Amino acid sequence: MSSAKYSVADMRRLCEDVFEKFGFTKEEAWRITDVLLLADLYGVKSHGIQRLVRYHKSIENGCVRVDAKPEIVFETPVSAVIDAHSCMGQLVSAFAMEKAIEKAKAVGMAFVTVRNSNHYGIAGYYTKMACDEGMIGLCVTNTEPIMVHTGARKAVLGTNPIAFAMPAEPVPFWFDAATTVVPRGKLEVYHKAGKELDPTWAVDDSGKPCTDAKRVMDCIGAKAGGGILPVGGFEESSGSHKGYGFAMICELLCAITSGGATSNHHIRAKGQGSGTCHAFMVIDPKIFGDPEAQKAHLSAFLQELRDAGRADENVPIYTHGEKEQIATEDRLKNGIEVDVNTLAEMIDTCKYVGLDSREYLGDVDVSGAMASYYNNVYKK
Amino acid sequence: MSSAKYSVADMRRLCEDVFEKFGFTKEEAWRITDVLLLADLYGVKSHGIQRLVRYHKSIENGCVRVDAKPEIVFETPVSAVIDAHSCMGQLVSAFAMEKAIEKAKAVGMAFVTVRNSNHYGIAGYYTKMACDEGMIGLCVTNTEPIMVHTGARKAVLGTNPIAFAMPAEPVPFWFDAATTVVPRGKLEVYHKAGKELDPTWAVDDSGKPCTDAKRVMDCIGAKAGGGILPVGGFEESSGSHKGYGFAMICELLCAITSGGATSNHHIRAKGQGSGTCHAFMVIDPKIFGDPEAQKAHLSAFLQELRDAGRADENVPIYTHGEKEQIATEDRLKNGIEVDVNTLAEMIDTCKYVGLDSREYLGDVDVSGAMASYYNNVYKK
Repeated sequence: MSSAKYSVADMRRLCEDVFEKFGFTKEEAWRITDVLLLADLYGVKSHGIQRLVRYHKSIENGCVRVDAKPEIVFETPVSAVIDAHSCMGQLVSAFAMEKAIEKAKAVGMAFVTVRNSNHYGIAGYYTKMACDEGMIGLCVTNTEPIMVHTGARKAVLGTNPIAFAMPAEPVPFWFDAATTVVPRGKLEVYHKAGKELDPTWAVDDSGKPCTDAKRVMDCIGAKAGGGILPVGGFEESSGSHKGYGFAMICELLCAITSGGATSNHHIRAKGQGSGTCHAFMVIDPKIFGDPEAQKAHLSAFLQELRDAGRADENVPIYTHGEKEQIATEDRLKNGIEVDVNTLAEMIDTCKYVGLDSREYLGDVDVSGAMASYYNNVYKK
Repeated sequence: MSSAKYSVADMRRLCEDVFEKFGFTKEEAWRITDVLLLADLYGVKSHGIQRLVRYHKSIENGCVRVDAKPEIVFETPVSAVIDAHSCMGQLVSAFAMEKAIEKAKAVGMAFVTVRNSNHYGIAGYYTKMACDEGMIGLCVTNTEPIMVHTGARKAVLGTNPIAFAMPAEPVPFWFDAATTVVPRGKLEVYHKAGKELDPTWAVDDSGKPCTDAKRVMDCIGAKAGGGILPVGGFEESSGSHKGYGFAMICELLCAITSGGATSNHHIRAKGQGSGTCHAFMVIDPKIFGDPEAQKAHLSAFLQELRDAGRADENVPIYTHGEKEQIATEDRLKNGIEVDVNTLAEMIDTCKYVGLDSREYLGDVDVSGAMASYYNNVYKK
């Protein structure tokens, strides 16, 4: 067996029970699960329940403090600075976005920034919270360093995703993308498939383009240099400095404004939070006039983009958020596919917290799982 | 003669006199000139005085209305929507950014959006205005359509630059970049040099990658399809949808919020404004606590980026804004280089407004200028 499918409800039940067992309240367990499952629903598997093991290990290592509560350390009518005190990233982030929405409803726009947090899941979850309230949402985060900026040979910046959402019909504009040219997971996929990397994707510890996935992954693991390039690649001629600039905007908006750690100062040590920073901006479209007129305008524009004539007649033109809508319909109908490695990790996690995994997953054969998959691939 | 050098003061005097002759007030002529010259000082030649001819033609064609004044059509304490009434883009934009700064000083942050404008020069001029006041500035614009979005064969989006600035020492973080992979001017340079384009830069009217610069330029001119790709190139695997998404964020922030024209609805007809939209956001760092602490934090971080170890020992690592600082020092000391085509156009413009170009440029031999350079290259 290489994978199995489960209903969204089954996965929700498992995750909620696991997080409650870890010591979170019912509401907290719901929120963490909701963030994880939105990634699976949207087809962003990398950020979905396959990450359960990372949260498990982060809690076990004391990187995530289960009992920590976010604290507002500075506040104005349009802003707040929050110290997460190393709590679960999803919890401080939902709290921060709710605060930003509340302030934007009161004064028109707001900016909430967070320091000393941990991985918060899919950035677009939080902009969706704003969008669901009829607001424009922007969200950025930094991460552990992996991006080698233009001209350098050492990773200082994170994958630094930018998420942005704005209400539209039939599907909102929902954008969520790392500012690296490819995600780290892509290196793993190419390594497993024995394929050469595109030379615009990564550099080794010399700072020169490297097409050997294993070598790049080893360099990243050794933290001696090398990493993934910004969107725009290696050369300024293809826009390397642009991706580098977008990643910088993320750092400035979340780490500098919050007085927190830039990506190169994130911590990965037992008993210490990672120091991740996030930022959440909400704009109420009412500050520009009629929100319904803006929604109609955007909806019409998105349709013009879809109708712009296809480069390939068999491949539709998508606007951002459409593929996620399609994936959601599929997952709700057909369930979420969970690969055997993730299943093995879930069984481990259930065992660790004292749950019987068979109540959620049934009897599954995980003999095909890679031994110590987490330790081999993720722990570095 | 292929080019000549002039002092910044000489170029300033020429531009100010030309714009006054076109009917602008002394203050207006100063502002337009100041925007143009910042581009030259920063080494962004494409947006500097070589564009004088485009503004001349835009005024002559009635696209820019010299006597129009920007009108605030909607306003809240954190926002304003401005109708430019087809005035000069630089004038409404400086007005809008001043308004945003004033509001941000009063309430912490502000967002001002503009419709029915024209080309506004270098986006980063306006974020610099905010940064010079100790503020964080963001500025976006749309343009005439030239970007072919992922999967399409027709240009709907503009070059849609994003500019962002934040105070730091010894040089502020100053980012200003189009969300296309390359500027249009690069196609012209490659065409003149007889070089093949990189296949990730542009598509022809079939929507397929095209390395023939002339063919792409002809397609763009014929408005029948084809254009420049987003940063990230042609394929999603290299991040095409990311550049497409960043360009979309520009459209949403300026055209949807202002109720103005998205890039694909820009107008290029005699007697009508282009319909360009802009947006200006200002954040006072005081809303996050101590601005000096943020500045010190950012300055230290920028130094870490410069010190990250060079991929090539002979090539420094730059942070955004440093190259512009270096160029400024050079231009102030050594003057601005003006190529012979631009000189010929300047002489034409002086003649058109009734100024003696020799008073500014001296006696120059422009026999080497391309005949009808403007008509051949820019008018399409």
